[in-house]
Amino acid sequence: MDFAVRPEMQQILAGIQQFLEQEVYPLEPEVAARGFKALLPQLRATREKVKKLGYWCPQIPKDYGGMGLRLLEHGLVSAVLGRSTLGHYVFNCQAPDAGNMEILIAHGTAEQKKNYLEPLLRGEIRSCFAMTEPERPGSNPLWMETTARRDGGHYVLNGHKWFTSAADGAAFAVVMAITNPEAAPHRRASQIIVPTGAPGFKLVRNLRVMGHHGEDYASHGEVVFEDCRVPQTNLLGTEGAGFLIAQERLGAGRIHHCMRWIGICERGFDLMCRRAVARELAPGKPLATRQIIQQWIAESRAEINAARLMVLEAAWKIDNFGQLAARVEISCIKFFVADVLLRVLDRAVQTHGALGLTSETPLAAFLAGERGARIYDGPDEVHKMVVARQVLKKYGLQIPS
Amino acid sequence: MDFAVRPEMQQILAGIQQFLEQEVYPLEPEVAARGFKALLPQLRATREKVKKLGYWCPQIPKDYGGMGLRLLEHGLVSAVLGRSTLGHYVFNCQAPDAGNMEILIAHGTAEQKKNYLEPLLRGEIRSCFAMTEPERPGSNPLWMETTARRDGGHYVLNGHKWFTSAADGAAFAVVMAITNPEAAPHRRASQIIVPTGAPGFKLVRNLRVMGHHGEDYASHGEVVFEDCRVPQTNLLGTEGAGFLIAQERLGAGRIHHCMRWIGICERGFDLMCRRAVARELAPGKPLATRQIIQQWIAESRAEINAARLMVLEAAWKIDNFGQLAARVEISCIKFFVADVLLRVLDRAVQTHGALGLTSETPLAAFLAGERGARIYDGPDEVHKMVVARQVLKKYGLQIPS
Amino acid sequence: MDFAVRPEMQQILAGIQQFLEQEVYPLEPEVAARGFKALLPQLRATREKVKKLGYWCPQIPKDYGGMGLRLLEHGLVSAVLGRSTLGHYVFNCQAPDAGNMEILIAHGTAEQKKNYLEPLLRGEIRSCFAMTEPERPGSNPLWMETTARRDGGHYVLNGHKWFTSAADGAAFAVVMAITNPEAAPHRRASQIIVPTGAPGFKLVRNLRVMGHHGEDYASHGEVVFEDCRVPQTNLLGTEGAGFLIAQERLGAGRIHHCMRWIGICERGFDLMCRRAVARELAPGKPLATRQIIQQWIAESRAEINAARLMVLEAAWKIDNFGQLAARVEISCIKFFVADVLLRVLDRAVQTHGALGLTSETPLAAFLAGERGARIYDGPDEVHKMVVARQVLKKYGLQIPS
Amino acid sequence: MDFAVRPEMQQILAGIQQFLEQEVYPLEPEVAARGFKALLPQLRATREKVKKLGYWCPQIPKDYGGMGLRLLEHGLVSAVLGRSTLGHYVFNCQAPDAGNMEILIAHGTAEQKKNYLEPLLRGEIRSCFAMTEPERPGSNPLWMETTARRDGGHYVLNGHKWFTSAADGAAFAVVMAITNPEAAPHRRASQIIVPTGAPGFKLVRNLRVMGHHGEDYASHGEVVFEDCRVPQTNLLGTEGAGFLIAQERLGAGRIHHCMRWIGICERGFDLMCRRAVARELAPGKPLATRQIIQQWIAESRAEINAARLMVLEAAWKIDNFGQLAARVEISCIKFFVADVLLRVLDRAVQTHGALGLTSETPLAAFLAGERGARIYDGPDEVHKMVVARQVLKKYGLQIPS
Repeated sequence: MDFAVRPEMQQILAGIQQFLEQEVYPLEPEVAARGFKALLPQLRATREKVKKLGYWCPQIPKDYGGMGLRLLEHGLVSAVLGRSTLGHYVFNCQAPDAGNMEILIAHGTAEQKKNYLEPLLRGEIRSCFAMTEPERPGSNPLWMETTARRDGGHYVLNGHKWFTSAADGAAFAVVMAITNPEAAPHRRASQIIVPTGAPGFKLVRNLRVMGHHGEDYASHGEVVFEDCRVPQTNLLGTEGAGFLIAQERLGAGRIHHCMRWIGICERGFDLMCRRAVARELAPGKPLATRQIIQQWIAESRAEINAARLMVLEAAWKIDNFGQLAARVEISCIKFFVADVLLRVLDRAVQTHGALGLTSETPLAAFLAGERGARIYDGPDEVHKMVVARQVLKKYGLQIPS
Repeated sequence: MDFAVRPEMQQILAGIQQFLEQEVYPLEPEVAARGFKALLPQLRATREKVKKLGYWCPQIPKDYGGMGLRLLEHGLVSAVLGRSTLGHYVFNCQAPDAGNMEILIAHGTAEQKKNYLEPLLRGEIRSCFAMTEPERPGSNPLWMETTARRDGGHYVLNGHKWFTSAADGAAFAVVMAITNPEAAPHRRASQIIVPTGAPGFKLVRNLRVMGHHGEDYASHGEVVFEDCRVPQTNLLGTEGAGFLIAQERLGAGRIHHCMRWIGICERGFDLMCRRAVARELAPGKPLATRQIIQQWIAESRAEINAARLMVLEAAWKIDNFGQLAARVEISCIKFFVADVLLRVLDRAVQTHGALGLTSETPLAAFLAGERGARIYDGPDEVHKMVVARQVLKKYGLQIPS
Repeated sequence: MDFAVRPEMQQILAGIQQFLEQEVYPLEPEVAARGFKALLPQLRATREKVKKLGYWCPQIPKDYGGMGLRLLEHGLVSAVLGRSTLGHYVFNCQAPDAGNMEILIAHGTAEQKKNYLEPLLRGEIRSCFAMTEPERPGSNPLWMETTARRDGGHYVLNGHKWFTSAADGAAFAVVMAITNPEAAPHRRASQIIVPTGAPGFKLVRNLRVMGHHGEDYASHGEVVFEDCRVPQTNLLGTEGAGFLIAQERLGAGRIHHCMRWIGICERGFDLMCRRAVARELAPGKPLATRQIIQQWIAESRAEINAARLMVLEAAWKIDNFGQLAARVEISCIKFFVADVLLRVLDRAVQTHGALGLTSETPLAAFLAGERGARIYDGPDEVHKMVVARQVLKKYGLQIPS
Repeated sequence: MDFAVRPEMQQILAGIQQFLEQEVYPLEPEVAARGFKALLPQLRATREKVKKLGYWCPQIPKDYGGMGLRLLEHGLVSAVLGRSTLGHYVFNCQAPDAGNMEILIAHGTAEQKKNYLEPLLRGEIRSCFAMTEPERPGSNPLWMETTARRDGGHYVLNGHKWFTSAADGAAFAVVMAITNPEAAPHRRASQIIVPTGAPGFKLVRNLRVMGHHGEDYASHGEVVFEDCRVPQTNLLGTEGAGFLIAQERLGAGRIHHCMRWIGICERGFDLMCRRAVARELAPGKPLATRQIIQQWIAESRAEINAARLMVLEAAWKIDNFGQLAARVEISCIKFFVADVLLRVLDRAVQTHGALGLTSETPLAAFLAGERGARIYDGPDEVHKMVVARQVLKKYGLQIPS
């Protein structure tokens, strides 16, 4: 066992951290005040700088123009990027584009790669992933209503999706739809590329999440497909392979989220410590002299360390043995890290008092934006059942899912 | 000991509950979609109905046109009103107006009552309370920088306040300012009525709280006083009595908040149960069949019951023995009920999944709006120290505050 | 609503508290050092003093020689008695005798009352209640294996019980056994009085609970019935009424436990405060000056107050509307108060440091003895399901038990 | 970074696990029933088998007859040994002997090594460490009352110690005593070897901890030194170096404890899973089908994994950079792992119901024996302050300890 990060990687991480502090943190209040869309020109310029420094698309193979990092090392990068609300976007490794890139690399045809993957990789367009439906529980992905019926050389899609994150401004959606309703449950759905300009694709609205509509990349769309028509060449992989393709990248997707959360934790921890030192309760008596604040700092430090090690171990296991071997670890980090995240943020807010509720720090935005961490990509309760099922198998008990 | 609510009161509570469901709940999504200000005409009409039903100003003595309820019974009313984000406003017992009314009744001159109290009681104007300062910790109210200097027959105020809730649209502010800097710490500040139209009164902005600026009543202002000039007849009570006057109504103020929170808990609990019954995980298998959901329902029920009884006992103690005798109880409910509130809301949100984060239910608004419950009117940590100090006195130990 | 305790009752409570401090607390270290059995003579003498003071059997009707208190007021007494590990025993209202007395009063024949109830009431004998079986879950009382077969004028019992508390030294057991295996599940069992001297009654051993065998009253027995023969006149009530009789007194039984736990909490709280004031971290700097200790004191005070009010309200509801009306409240207090109990004890132990683990204070005995509070009389998880089932019924959902 | 355990080590761990299951687990109920002392002959025989297998003294350098494992790998071994209450003892790496061996290796004179270290290493004698005093807080080690006065060629010790673990049956004690009362606070104490047969050494009693006196190795002694006289050649290192020597091995000591706790967690987890699968709530419906049990399994799995990784990283850091560099990590694991330990045990007990309180499983013994984990070697609250102090230093704030 060796907990050391190799020196080249340490240098990269330091470089990214410095870049964030100098180029990205200053954009945060701008985005908070003026909105994501208004900042797009500046964000584009900042992205160009990232490309020049060689940090673009850290998770993408070198052949496709990325840094080619394995999951563990991309995790380390992600934990730095997560400190800013804009970090992943600026480095072009933001969800859901990162996932769509992976799917296209693994399953895209040459034409799909040319039309969709390459502009994504260059950062010229954005994409979204339409799976969740308002009338069906996300915890039961097999129970889905959106359909894609073959009609001539086309698919005709009908259905209702929501929490299609970043649909506003996206060039295309990867859509999960039932193509084979008579097949076995796991073989009914397919993934289909649907340009947002296709006839019948309708972005109804950006949902208000914790009171905010958001806009552009920072939004969650409600989408309706009304006889929406796309050529059959937009199918990803084979018909009925929708779940399989989705599952293939679940592991990596969760590592990405979890390491981003570690980054948020570190930012919250840093802000908490700064405030504790700077804020005086009485002249010469900073908040940090209160024992409760000290306990929060210690508990947060321990929990973040624990969370970080767990995510890295899970990434290492996926890198070396595949995601199937890491099923328990992946579900463990999903609920464990989300819990740590919300607890650390809560303590950081409480340390700031009323200030913590305002937009003077990114804390309120993190808190509002990440309450969903315990829900999206599978609620805590489902991941805990997954872990228990795997564990109990070793004790000879099969629990139906 | 008798836990029964007298029959007349039960009838009043049922009447108010019915009114809320029929007249107020339907306005909630309107306010969420169009903002508080746009709804003012309708809210005014609803308030007139409340007056006709005889439920106007439940906490105000009959001589002043209210229902004249004692604290315990007003608490029961408040727990019903709190179920709606608009309840207290519609019944004219909302903070900070309710507190300002009490101060004016107790300390206002005939002229102050005529000019400020009476239109408040009639619901014609609103008011705010300017105490908290950005550069000074709210937990140390004696350390304040806003000053009011005598100049001829006037006070000239200078200073910087924030979290002056509902300043936007208010007719006047009650301002805490240092008038006697050389006096003993507790005798330095005075309360002064400052019309928002006075020269030098400047509402800088509505703060963004959990990302929202809010507007009109639903807002938290940042206020600057620049050589703001008001006649000395605007002084409330005597010079140097600012803290004393503030403290007099702390007890009642906390009962009001806590019982309002109980109302929010009940609404959250109701929404959680409804969702658990209505949402199916698979055909014919509602969410409520999951043991975790059942445990949350049971834990929430127990915690809300506990919180409610504690607040009622504290109110009873204030009614019968005065707030000094109830100091431990008042501080206990402040942190205990805030904690229950946030836990119940959190469970209700998790039960709703992604829906709980949207504005389709009032849950997200409650969650965002009430994270501050553990901060405003004294953070948890301060109230816990107050309790410990009182308890340890009985064991012969004086702990300096 | 009225939270006042009537003056006569206040006087009684003060008298009992004083008696405990003077006569019972001093016996605690004796029992700890020498065992329960060795102290029996002194305990007997102390009981005689209780009789003389008129506090004997507070929960028993005056006609039967008790104080005749209703449940709420007995609850108040119980919260005082619970402060000592010996309190309930000394006042002859200890479980399981208290429950057996109630059963005998309600269902005993004249002969049963003469032979079993009267000596119990006089404190001359003790009894036990044999229900739980090692091979069957306590949470499913219908699934039981002990049988009582009619044979001539006798019942012949066979079966295996454990956690038959206080069997060691008891004169008789009330035994739950299947008499009617063909009846509907709830009508299969009967309650039968079995003298411990009956042929075939065998106390196998006192179980080691948290490492202690205990002895006499302070013990939990494992009991085997091997063709154990008792006359049919020992049947309590009618055949098949076993569950009904058991359920009739569940409500009262839980109030008794919960109020006893409140008493333990108050003792733990008192010890924690005393230690915080007395123990110095450095010369002149008592432990109570640490903020964490202060927070524990405040949190404990709030939680104990909450727990106490909930139990009293549940008792009031049983007194006034019967235990069926109070089903939610009864289950809520069972898990809520047990949780508070263990948390308060845990904080008290931590405040004492290593001392808290020793037998120098009653804390370790309370902690070891009451970990079972979350298990006996129904584990937390079962009570939470009971609450949820009742609540969800109002929302139109029937959940099978 | 590499989370793989080298293959040779994996083999050793598997061998030790197998040995435990075959040779040590079967002794546990024997010790529980008959006491530690009665089992000494069998334990001695088992220890001989360990020696033959080459697993003796895993933490001791090969030159001294041990396996020579570094801290990280000894941690892995320790996590296996901890699964049994007897594991460390049987492999001769039990506290406090392990610590005393390290001290003697580092600071012992040739004569001290011959007389004390060598028989310890061979497992012929046992030792204890007398530091904690009843009248002084363990959290302030500088405030100590035991003195050792020079008198001719001897030290004369006077003082009162307790929680001198394993004093019963020990051949000698390493005693912390003030030799230089006029020196700077950290230079006042020395470590002195005191044979338990020395005149004036008095083992007053074995303390009752959670109700048990214990005996022999499994005990905590109260010791009095009354003009206890030992030659000056029994001084360890130099006069006044007592704290320095003690601190040198704090890091390793905490890794040992924490990894032992991980072992206990794994045993508890295993027992919980076994019980969940075996215990039926109704015919064919095992406890493991309950969602709450599944959540406990998942939460426990995640927490144990987190705890294990944190301890291993701390050990790795000590191995590679020394314990000073790992100060934050060492204090973090002390409170984090103790918390996980007690939570996992609590869930395991609750899963077992009443059975979990009995001595039929080792759970009750673990629970009673390890409540102290949050107290001994520094209470949680002190370790949290240590972490906060270190963290806040980086933010420019020095907090006095």
